[in-house]
Amino acid sequence: MSRGYNFAAGPAAVPEAVLRQAQAELLDWGQARASVMEISHRGKLFAELAAESECDLRSLLDIPGNYKVLFLQGGATQHFAQIPMNFARRDRIADYVVTGHWGEKAVREAWTLADVRIAANSDASRHTAIPARDTWTLHADAAYVHYTPNETIHGVEFQHVPDVGNVPLVADMSSDILSRPLDVRKFGLIYAGAQKNIGASGLVVMIVREDLLERCPKDLPKIFNYAEHAANDSMLNTPNTFGWYLASLVFKWLLGEGGLVAIGERNRAKAEHLYAGIDGSGGFYRNPVEPASRSWMNVPFTLFDEELNALFLKESEAAGLLALKGHKAVGGMRASLYNAVTLEAVHALADFMRDFAKRYG
Amino acid sequence: MSRGYNFAAGPAAVPEAVLRQAQAELLDWGQARASVMEISHRGKLFAELAAESECDLRSLLDIPGNYKVLFLQGGATQHFAQIPMNFARRDRIADYVVTGHWGEKAVREAWTLADVRIAANSDASRHTAIPARDTWTLHADAAYVHYTPNETIHGVEFQHVPDVGNVPLVADMSSDILSRPLDVRKFGLIYAGAQKNIGASGLVVMIVREDLLERCPKDLPKIFNYAEHAANDSMLNTPNTFGWYLASLVFKWLLGEGGLVAIGERNRAKAEHLYAGIDGSGGFYRNPVEPASRSWMNVPFTLFDEELNALFLKESEAAGLLALKGHKAVGGMRASLYNAVTLEAVHALADFMRDFAKRYG
Repeated sequence: MSRGYNFAAGPAAVPEAVLRQAQAELLDWGQARASVMEISHRGKLFAELAAESECDLRSLLDIPGNYKVLFLQGGATQHFAQIPMNFARRDRIADYVVTGHWGEKAVREAWTLADVRIAANSDASRHTAIPARDTWTLHADAAYVHYTPNETIHGVEFQHVPDVGNVPLVADMSSDILSRPLDVRKFGLIYAGAQKNIGASGLVVMIVREDLLERCPKDLPKIFNYAEHAANDSMLNTPNTFGWYLASLVFKWLLGEGGLVAIGERNRAKAEHLYAGIDGSGGFYRNPVEPASRSWMNVPFTLFDEELNALFLKESEAAGLLALKGHKAVGGMRASLYNAVTLEAVHALADFMRDFAKRYG
Repeated sequence: MSRGYNFAAGPAAVPEAVLRQAQAELLDWGQARASVMEISHRGKLFAELAAESECDLRSLLDIPGNYKVLFLQGGATQHFAQIPMNFARRDRIADYVVTGHWGEKAVREAWTLADVRIAANSDASRHTAIPARDTWTLHADAAYVHYTPNETIHGVEFQHVPDVGNVPLVADMSSDILSRPLDVRKFGLIYAGAQKNIGASGLVVMIVREDLLERCPKDLPKIFNYAEHAANDSMLNTPNTFGWYLASLVFKWLLGEGGLVAIGERNRAKAEHLYAGIDGSGGFYRNPVEPASRSWMNVPFTLFDEELNALFLKESEAAGLLALKGHKAVGGMRASLYNAVTLEAVHALADFMRDFAKRYG
């Protein structure tokens, strides 16, 4: 077999250059005389990797000095619970903005752990638009405001960081971190599962403002306490060292590609090309999301005739266009266009879609 | 550089055949036309891998049908907290047998989560012997008895599974799982971080008797609830798919090597060879552990003259014998002899030690 164009929603495409480097040094990494996965996380060589990867991430996102960077485990889902455990507790209000499936999941897990309030919810529109900021109900005394900048299933994405005043803004950025420039200063905490734009699953990257760590309750089990992880440089337990290594390669790759300005321009071009193909298909394809809320990362679309879905999937897969089946919650197709998905791949998809529409329209 | 003989305590050596296979298919796995880390954990191909890996592990350990196998995250350390959260809660007694550093850590994390009692503690002997079973104080109404069959820092290992009556026996088997045959029926729950005998860090394998899962409290956050993980086939969140894949390769490798009877014989031979070299060195090397409690997996040893430590490490490393520095808690050296460490590597180490002693004794 050979590699296809991979539009998976996550775990998702990894830059081929990163995979090639990982492959070349899989048995014999740097000076280790061993695989990077076979060495101590506390040894000099891994410590250097850890420090350099943090430095590269800080450079990519211009992370201010008063933010800590953590490399954790458990996926975003575990942190749906850990974030209220650390910052809200039962007696504190936590405001949640729900714009899709992942925001709903975050609410469900936080429900018994904090005084959760729904600041806004786009479910009435079936999550096809971001609710306008002036419709949100926020509490000035909330522990934090949680939102999901990009929703992978619905394909809706905030195009700007919402202003929530002095309340710390917490973002589950699993599916759009590192996809464009970002002003980290606007956030209290950013967290992201690695399996979309950072590398492989099993790693969570967290960027947290130092003063928030003072709120972490001392009676939490140590392993769930972010302040403890920060004080131990993410080595409170053995981290996912191979995942961390892959992330370090992705950060270097992003820097080599020109950083987030260049990546953001490429992501914009990819998304615009695909949406233009959908919108210009004369109704053969359709994306239900309000244009201003359309995601650059995940593009769900339906075919005018659902009976064609199976054929579309069969033919696209045969053409080397992989993992286009949409989530069952919205049906149809979904193309995920994370950083590792090339412009070439998007052109190939758009060309296939045009040809398919011509043949079956 | 080229690969050395790797005696790291964890993350530790991975079978070279496993690394070579992972390398060969890193960009293009099976029928996926993508890396195994680039595909959905819910897709057909990964589901097959997951099912087959469980089947192989069940075959290796002869796991009875009334036990669930889970593939989790967080390292053993996270489960030091999660186990009491799931099975004890504050009002239930949980008996802990402490035979070294990791048992102590398990106690410290459980302390606020259960009514922890220390059934036995070998600290008076500086953890150089397993306390005799008839000296333990156990509670018939305890939620479970927790112990650490092998302690990596002190190099003490239970040679038999202790009888604790009808109370479920819980074992942190991170450092000796799959190192020899095991009667799973004697346990309520077995858990193990993968980075010693299963593969890479960032994955935890858990084997748990089904009836215990009925005790998991419904008010726990879902992501911390083992019954939820079991009900969702370890896909409550995105698992560490690459770690799971590596584990699947290790299980196949173990089966190919003849299973745990063959592996156990080899591990016994490796350990006996190294201990014989230490005991036969006329006092140049010394292992402090009572012979009946000596570990097959981790062999700590000191040199008669501590001044020689730096030279020993320098020369051994130059000879391609890696990661022999002992843990600071006990000093000296430590050779970890996990499954992936070959008999050839142990012979090379013993030969080097004999030669070194001849030159500096």
